[in-house]
Amino acid sequence: MLLTEPSNGELLIKIKYTSICTSDLHTHSGRRMSPTPCVLGHEIIGEIIKMGRDVGADHNGNILTEGDVITWCVYAYDHSSEMALKGIPQKSVGLYKYGHHTFTPNDGLNGGLATHCMLKKGTAVFKFSNEINAKTAAPINCTHATIAGALRLAGDIAQKNILIAGAGMLGLSACAMANDVGAENVYAIDVNKDRLAYSKKFGATKTFEGDLSVEEINAELSIHEKIDIVLDTTGIPAVMEKGLKLLNIGGTAIWVGAVFNQPDTQINAEMIVRNLLTIKGLHNYTPADLASAIRFIEANHKKYPFEELVGAEFPLEELEQAFETAANGKYYRVGIRQ
Amino acid sequence: MLLTEPSNGELLIKIKYTSICTSDLHTHSGRRMSPTPCVLGHEIIGEIIKMGRDVGADHNGNILTEGDVITWCVYAYDHSSEMALKGIPQKSVGLYKYGHHTFTPNDGLNGGLATHCMLKKGTAVFKFSNEINAKTAAPINCTHATIAGALRLAGDIAQKNILIAGAGMLGLSACAMANDVGAENVYAIDVNKDRLAYSKKFGATKTFEGDLSVEEINAELSIHEKIDIVLDTTGIPAVMEKGLKLLNIGGTAIWVGAVFNQPDTQINAEMIVRNLLTIKGLHNYTPADLASAIRFIEANHKKYPFEELVGAEFPLEELEQAFETAANGKYYRVGIRQ
Repeated sequence: MLLTEPSNGELLIKIKYTSICTSDLHTHSGRRMSPTPCVLGHEIIGEIIKMGRDVGADHNGNILTEGDVITWCVYAYDHSSEMALKGIPQKSVGLYKYGHHTFTPNDGLNGGLATHCMLKKGTAVFKFSNEINAKTAAPINCTHATIAGALRLAGDIAQKNILIAGAGMLGLSACAMANDVGAENVYAIDVNKDRLAYSKKFGATKTFEGDLSVEEINAELSIHEKIDIVLDTTGIPAVMEKGLKLLNIGGTAIWVGAVFNQPDTQINAEMIVRNLLTIKGLHNYTPADLASAIRFIEANHKKYPFEELVGAEFPLEELEQAFETAANGKYYRVGIRQ
Repeated sequence: MLLTEPSNGELLIKIKYTSICTSDLHTHSGRRMSPTPCVLGHEIIGEIIKMGRDVGADHNGNILTEGDVITWCVYAYDHSSEMALKGIPQKSVGLYKYGHHTFTPNDGLNGGLATHCMLKKGTAVFKFSNEINAKTAAPINCTHATIAGALRLAGDIAQKNILIAGAGMLGLSACAMANDVGAENVYAIDVNKDRLAYSKKFGATKTFEGDLSVEEINAELSIHEKIDIVLDTTGIPAVMEKGLKLLNIGGTAIWVGAVFNQPDTQINAEMIVRNLLTIKGLHNYTPADLASAIRFIEANHKKYPFEELVGAEFPLEELEQAFETAANGKYYRVGIRQ
């Protein structure tokens, strides 16, 4: 019943691969609110099987045809909305988020943990190089696009020293992307020593164990190694507080991790003022960020072991087992291959 | 003994007018640390009476001659320093701050509450229109230049709604400058009702009493009047916290007031992330900001009653009385005319 014809501007997709994002785990376990019933899963790639009218090209202007494998923005939006015009389409009124929308009999193909997905009008879609395998490609439209957005906010990173707080999926992506755009030093900090060691495969040039104090970390940095940018993927107040204290004068903190209910972060405003610090929050990303993330993965998928990050795979029929495996935290990602 | 010849790159100045800044009051009363002994006073204008070699032109390229009345950056800096090259000259190593430097027999002409001041090499100096009277001109190189820097950090303000927190000297300057660059709405908030009413003479289009809650303020704003930018001149944690909560999605808070020892500001990082907010701290300003402030005052000194802000004047000999008058808080500024 759900496999209706795509309407004007829509694309019917046969899902090829979905990786389970940490936010899916939060929703599944009840730590995060989401409309129910819903089809979870938003780190997706899929094949176009039917095209509605008026869908001629992808976001980059490449002609689309049935059979093309694509990724897409995690949301559909009204391109003429006030927020879209302000450059923040991900906050448009009436946003439609894949993997976060109520399932109804007339609108159920809207998440990645299903056989099909109907892409709404206003979804930025992208073809990508067929050299990129499914494990590497699926997380592009969440993890890597978010980090591309974070680095956009950070401004020019070349020759700068950047600290990546948290060496999970987002953190590894950030290490690699910061390295790629010419950061002078890419530092990673995490309480998990294994993840920290692994971050060096993704471009981290120096790592700090999470329990080190500001003074201990600064003692390890020469005057030319002071931290210009902190990118926080942890969302943990104490880590964000430490990050601000580590920043050199004129430094910038980018926060992307704080997407869960939490106590306040304690900030010394005099330090922010006297040290001319900047804090920028980012939630989700823009189509241009996704385009940038795809370019990055196309250029670097052989340089960094992104494929390894999906540590286990399951068929769609074994979803419960897939969630159990994902929830035990052993792997950065668990994948669903169809 | 102190009236030595200016060395290479120096200018000997006969001080014409100094306004007592709130930070002078903080130092005078012991609330703020400063080297002692020192000559306070940094909101200054003066006349060049002797020029050292290699001082041919002001920062704008105008030829300087003895007899010219000028203002100058509150600091001298090494133009090749790392921070100067980063665009933050006010944080250069070895910065020399007028009105904040130790007085010694060989280096005593370094503040505004004296007959003369010796401008060091590396001080950005500026001639300005002789239509601007001394009361209006003296605060340019502190108050107005700081606000020019704050608005630079805020980015494009045209068509935006800005809230100025604190309707003191900095706040009034901010109202006027935001108005001048085409802000759609300029809101002011303060606990002092008189100051709030007075802010309307400086371009505030709507005012909010300081004890109103976030909900009460939002209830007074239509969807198109939501606050895009908050400029905090108060430095009070509760006010900065309220400012962040008032910001529209994608909004920016500029903090310039928090230059005194204070408890932490409590920030909900999830709000910063989900609302894509930005916080930027600014301390002091750059020569370009001072240039911008001078242009603003030259263009607007008749439009807004800046002259009124200096509510009382004293000769240099009655400095104790001047400080007493300034400390009672009746006037925005007290001036010392020579």
